[in-house]
Amino acid sequence: MSVWPLLEDDEMPARSAAVIDDIRATRKTDFINNFWRVLANDPALLERTWASLKDVMGPGVLDPKVKEMLYVAVSIANSCEYCIRSHTAAARAKGMSEAELGELMAIVGMASETNRLAIGLQVPVDAAFGVPFAGAREPDAG
Amino acid sequence: MSVWPLLEDDEMPARSAAVIDDIRATRKTDFINNFWRVLANDPALLERTWASLKDVMGPGVLDPKVKEMLYVAVSIANSCEYCIRSHTAAARAKGMSEAELGELMAIVGMASETNRLAIGLQVPVDAAFGVPFAGAREPDAG
Amino acid sequence: MSVWPLLEDDEMPARSAAVIDDIRATRKTDFINNFWRVLANDPALLERTWASLKDVMGPGVLDPKVKEMLYVAVSIANSCEYCIRSHTAAARAKGMSEAELGELMAIVGMASETNRLAIGLQVPVDAAFGVPFAGAREPDAG
Amino acid sequence: MSVWPLLEDDEMPARSAAVIDDIRATRKTDFINNFWRVLANDPALLERTWASLKDVMGPGVLDPKVKEMLYVAVSIANSCEYCIRSHTAAARAKGMSEAELGELMAIVGMASETNRLAIGLQVPVDAAFGVPFAGAREPDAG
Amino acid sequence: MSVWPLLEDDEMPARSAAVIDDIRATRKTDFINNFWRVLANDPALLERTWASLKDVMGPGVLDPKVKEMLYVAVSIANSCEYCIRSHTAAARAKGMSEAELGELMAIVGMASETNRLAIGLQVPVDAAFGVPFAGAREPDAG
Amino acid sequence: MSVWPLLEDDEMPARSAAVIDDIRATRKTDFINNFWRVLANDPALLERTWASLKDVMGPGVLDPKVKEMLYVAVSIANSCEYCIRSHTAAARAKGMSEAELGELMAIVGMASETNRLAIGLQVPVDAAFGVPFAGAREPDAG
Repeated sequence: MSVWPLLEDDEMPARSAAVIDDIRATRKTDFINNFWRVLANDPALLERTWASLKDVMGPGVLDPKVKEMLYVAVSIANSCEYCIRSHTAAARAKGMSEAELGELMAIVGMASETNRLAIGLQVPVDAAFGVPFAGAREPDAG
Repeated sequence: MSVWPLLEDDEMPARSAAVIDDIRATRKTDFINNFWRVLANDPALLERTWASLKDVMGPGVLDPKVKEMLYVAVSIANSCEYCIRSHTAAARAKGMSEAELGELMAIVGMASETNRLAIGLQVPVDAAFGVPFAGAREPDAG
Repeated sequence: MSVWPLLEDDEMPARSAAVIDDIRATRKTDFINNFWRVLANDPALLERTWASLKDVMGPGVLDPKVKEMLYVAVSIANSCEYCIRSHTAAARAKGMSEAELGELMAIVGMASETNRLAIGLQVPVDAAFGVPFAGAREPDAG
Repeated sequence: MSVWPLLEDDEMPARSAAVIDDIRATRKTDFINNFWRVLANDPALLERTWASLKDVMGPGVLDPKVKEMLYVAVSIANSCEYCIRSHTAAARAKGMSEAELGELMAIVGMASETNRLAIGLQVPVDAAFGVPFAGAREPDAG
Repeated sequence: MSVWPLLEDDEMPARSAAVIDDIRATRKTDFINNFWRVLANDPALLERTWASLKDVMGPGVLDPKVKEMLYVAVSIANSCEYCIRSHTAAARAKGMSEAELGELMAIVGMASETNRLAIGLQVPVDAAFGVPFAGAREPDAG
Repeated sequence: MSVWPLLEDDEMPARSAAVIDDIRATRKTDFINNFWRVLANDPALLERTWASLKDVMGPGVLDPKVKEMLYVAVSIANSCEYCIRSHTAAARAKGMSEAELGELMAIVGMASETNRLAIGLQVPVDAAFGVPFAGAREPDAG
């Protein structure tokens, strides 16, 4: 049971219902997953979260499948079962193969291992890695 | 200062020196970053860690640049400064643009936000997300 | 199923039963939640944990409702379902409105997002933030 | 050194400079901390992050000081030095006393301890905590 | 339900079946826990994970029971229910008493508390703790 | 720079000075590390933290060296540089060899890897691991 109830379409405040309509239109499906039905209890939180997600996960320079795989990787590191499930499903829907999922798992595991070794042994950052990138202003051109 | 000293080439045990040679040969560079120079104090740990990393980050089904970006994403979630620095450098060396890095940052931030919302509100996993994938055995064919 | 059994009142060691009595007296309720029934298997752990919690969450300079909200925020960041549930209930019992809970969720999500951006981009601390607070000894006066 | 350079005002893309202007106007100060000067390298990321932060940390039902204290608590749990420093400074600027900071620290420490005990002992959630809140739709009225 | 199906012995790819045979031989039991049955969907991941685990958790300088207790401690800090359950069972099988488990829990809780206090108060590392250990090369002799 | 100043002996409130005296007496050394000098700004926090630490890390059923190693393992998982440094020093002072430290690092890394695999693949807990331990009340006898 969630902390706030899962709202059916006809139980939602009007502002939330409008966001749900946009999710359906953007995703071209009637299916609304539980995350949004819970957030719908707080229209301001729902509006801002969906606006940000639509922006971040929408068209950009990275492949949509890769974006979902990055989302899954972070969700595993943060131990969020809900997000692992929903974004693994999204990554598969966007073309992630099982072999790619296997490599994703291997990388998440390996990174978690070496992260802890570097922290545990307090390895100092190499001078070669510490310099800021000269051309970083370019995103503005995009 | 690291917990174990940064070993110069001529200070390493023979087993560690052999691993360092393989890192140089594999990466086609003489540069050895501090992570390996610290691990070199424990030959068994160095051998196993390098063997795994070489395997996981070597050629596979995912683009090497994407692999490094996944590594960066996990390292941020785990708060490992060393790994953020070293793998951001690696991702750039493998072609990651600053616009791609910007999207990576946006996704890591967004996922961390929705991870906490889903956990905080205890959103139940949708039945649609809970089913195991039917074709999962395929990696064996690869 | 917990790692240690949930002890009923008549199954507890005498030292644990005494702590449980104090929890009931302090909270003015007969209800004992599962956390304490599991800790009751180890009287020393139960005694110390309850003594600390009673001290930290007892009367002080912060509003009891705010204390519970801080507890919920940390529990979300640490992915502890049990503590999210129990302290959200406690915060509501101490007057937290659903609108306040919505703001709490928004802040936890937002902080988690900017935490990762600051870590991922390795933003250096501003000199203005680095100075220790001059008047820090005052708590002694209280 | 940050991953992207700290941009001076006259080095920023125009879209970023406009956001920086709004930060100055909203906060009624010329001081711009490093977090924004690094994000300014990616105008889209800067715009969205500032818009969300302005919304979440702006006027609402919770006391601004309490909001900053919640931000500090999450930042500690996520090990973000930058955010601990900047939001501790903000909380102090909004009236947090050192005694309040002491209680905040005690709660963050205590919650982290009991979070681990509840997780480590796998304490099951009490039935009493599992029910969703009946009146959760009210935020819409606000 | 796991992300990949739990494979029965006769459903596994040949490379995975060979690893499972080695797990049975090494552990001297027919019982194969779910972790391995899920990893069996990706033979390369299964092979590497088992080879590493067998090496790390095999005979060494630390008592096998202590090794399992360290594993449990990390698993609690990482909020991994599966690993808490499986390694608590393994630690008990290797002789961990309930009193030892109680001390383990107390230490994990206490460390989590002081970790947050040290991070939250940004305590600088004492000069006395910062020096690398002079004799660190000895593991090679072993 | 810490959030509160590092207090010299003659700058401490009387209640804090008394705790510091007990630390010196218990540890049989004049050296007081920074953690306590910062906590000394808040006598109540200092008193409670030291009382708990003295109790948890004092004589018990586990070897003092093993206790410190468990502390280090958790501190790595929580990314606390201060605690990694101070408790690695303490573990060495209590007899931890560099080979033992190497095994500790290997286990922390390995556990972090398999924790993420079990979470990422959502491996269900085996029925065999889910049963509470029948004899858990024994600690009371001790």
